[in-house]
Amino acid sequence: MPSDQSAPHAAPMEGGGAYNRGGVVQAAHAGSVLPLLEAAVRRVPVDPTGAPLVLADYGCSQGANSLAPLHAAIAALRERVGSERPISVVHNDQPGNDFSSLFRLLEDDPGSYLRDDANVFPSAVGRSYFRRVLPPGSVSFGWSSMAVHWLSRAPATVPDSWHPAFTAVASVREAYERQSAEDWRTFLTHRAEELRPGGRLLVSMLGVSDDGAPGYEPMVRHMHAERDAMRADGALSAEQGARLFVPALGRSRTAVLAPFGAEGRFAGLAVEHVEVAPAPDPIWHAFSGNGDAAAFGKRWAAMFRVTIAPSLAAALDPADRAGFLDRLEAGLAARYAAAPEPMPMWVARVVLARTDD
Amino acid sequence: MPSDQSAPHAAPMEGGGAYNRGGVVQAAHAGSVLPLLEAAVRRVPVDPTGAPLVLADYGCSQGANSLAPLHAAIAALRERVGSERPISVVHNDQPGNDFSSLFRLLEDDPGSYLRDDANVFPSAVGRSYFRRVLPPGSVSFGWSSMAVHWLSRAPATVPDSWHPAFTAVASVREAYERQSAEDWRTFLTHRAEELRPGGRLLVSMLGVSDDGAPGYEPMVRHMHAERDAMRADGALSAEQGARLFVPALGRSRTAVLAPFGAEGRFAGLAVEHVEVAPAPDPIWHAFSGNGDAAAFGKRWAAMFRVTIAPSLAAALDPADRAGFLDRLEAGLAARYAAAPEPMPMWVARVVLARTDD
Repeated sequence: MPSDQSAPHAAPMEGGGAYNRGGVVQAAHAGSVLPLLEAAVRRVPVDPTGAPLVLADYGCSQGANSLAPLHAAIAALRERVGSERPISVVHNDQPGNDFSSLFRLLEDDPGSYLRDDANVFPSAVGRSYFRRVLPPGSVSFGWSSMAVHWLSRAPATVPDSWHPAFTAVASVREAYERQSAEDWRTFLTHRAEELRPGGRLLVSMLGVSDDGAPGYEPMVRHMHAERDAMRADGALSAEQGARLFVPALGRSRTAVLAPFGAEGRFAGLAVEHVEVAPAPDPIWHAFSGNGDAAAFGKRWAAMFRVTIAPSLAAALDPADRAGFLDRLEAGLAARYAAAPEPMPMWVARVVLARTDD
Repeated sequence: MPSDQSAPHAAPMEGGGAYNRGGVVQAAHAGSVLPLLEAAVRRVPVDPTGAPLVLADYGCSQGANSLAPLHAAIAALRERVGSERPISVVHNDQPGNDFSSLFRLLEDDPGSYLRDDANVFPSAVGRSYFRRVLPPGSVSFGWSSMAVHWLSRAPATVPDSWHPAFTAVASVREAYERQSAEDWRTFLTHRAEELRPGGRLLVSMLGVSDDGAPGYEPMVRHMHAERDAMRADGALSAEQGARLFVPALGRSRTAVLAPFGAEGRFAGLAVEHVEVAPAPDPIWHAFSGNGDAAAFGKRWAAMFRVTIAPSLAAALDPADRAGFLDRLEAGLAARYAAAPEPMPMWVARVVLARTDD
């Protein structure tokens, strides 16, 4: 964790498209949500003015996991408005996001939504989505995938775990729950302002099961074991180890619905759908087919490295980061490979409609 | 020059905001154009729908030279539409542009147009402006400052100069003139499509004086001398030296007006104003005041390094670039300092209006 309490809400990513190459689990999350996405886009009103229809991608990272869902959203709109209507796609993430990789991906990737549609216009906004990002009433469909569980700041240090969901310190856990609740309301308030009347917002985020399990238990176990091993052999000081935690927290169905109250309404948004579902585990699926434990370990370690590890490493001095990341990736790969098991993961999904009032 | 003939049209910039810190001459260009800009923005029609008004910044680089002109454009619009109307500002440059520096500048710079206006919404498009960049009919005011003299590709190698304006080889010069003419028409055609009826486009670019002088003669002389010195002492091979040229060419009044013909019309654009003027020389101005020749040399060398040198260095192997740039900057600083003189520079400016037909 950066000591700066206005830390970025998403992990600082490694550049050069690293996230695009490693985010296989995020990609599987995105794939499983397509039917829900298409149904939501079909309910969006399309005015007859011919003005560009705006799709927003909140927390885009380098874009790899945005291509398929946005392609699907565009296709669902094209069925209704034909091929000529301009469609703007706005990708949003932190100012420091690797937007060059995003734009290159849009130009070059065979799966890019630009490939078969000359009337789609991509752009990017480098600004925290905990603020205003787009003009009021401008967005027809908003999408956010596996991003908003990253908090706007770390409300407390986490002394006993790298993840606040696993701390035994009640006051720390409560501080994170409060921050998560506040961030969720802030995110929704801004998105409500940006949506057109009748526009839809689909948010996927790290979930917590209905019986309170945060998921990722094997990852947490292996990470703690590797951290302790690094401490034991001097690769990490106790002081450094205590800084290794991430400002992220999954949300239960109750937490997702909390702002909406008994009427299911908040800030001009109405809940159309909510679910907390087990998330697909493509790495375990591949292992079940090929029995390759080494590959299984490497894929989980690579996944950890590009999604979470940079945020951990940001707490260390810059000179120490690369060595830490290499050691961590190698250590986790060995630990996963030694005892392959499925990774319990939960994803919370909510579809919201902007009301007219 | 990259050997790839689909080379980027703008010089690859050094990251980390280098261009923002070094582009003092570009900043002076931008400053001198403000009255023309404000007059153009005042003639733009503003519809009463309340939809966002769109300003486009073609060739934004890292944004430092866009802040003052866009601030002025926004102020001129605010006089007419009040403080509530959303204004979108779209910054455009190559996919590889340093958009993170741009977004950080917009957030943090005291001169940012976001500072005193909550209803301005910045975004970026990472795509060559020799293609479609924005939806048809969406732009109220387009602005491009000191960018479109960079060509979409190098049509030929330049054997005897680092700049095609100074070659003695007629066929090479003609190839560059043809490419420049084609690129200008391509640029205008796409911008015409993007402008709203009555929208205005103001383009500033490297000019050629009415008697045919391309300007920058001292810079060319010093650069050639430094290149020859590097060859003589083995820092640069003859083969490397032959690759050191930039795909850029200024435009004369005649070249700027060529697409528009006798009627002053092209692709739905009408010429409202054209000029080729001497460009301000803030570095000479400072030297005239303080007589500090060393500072004079350093400023021109730094200016060369951030604007043009990266494009030259791109022709070299990556491992050779930093050494080449350091040597070149130091050598140019010494040569400028040894004999301070004003830098003749010309800027071509044109204001175009989108007609209704």
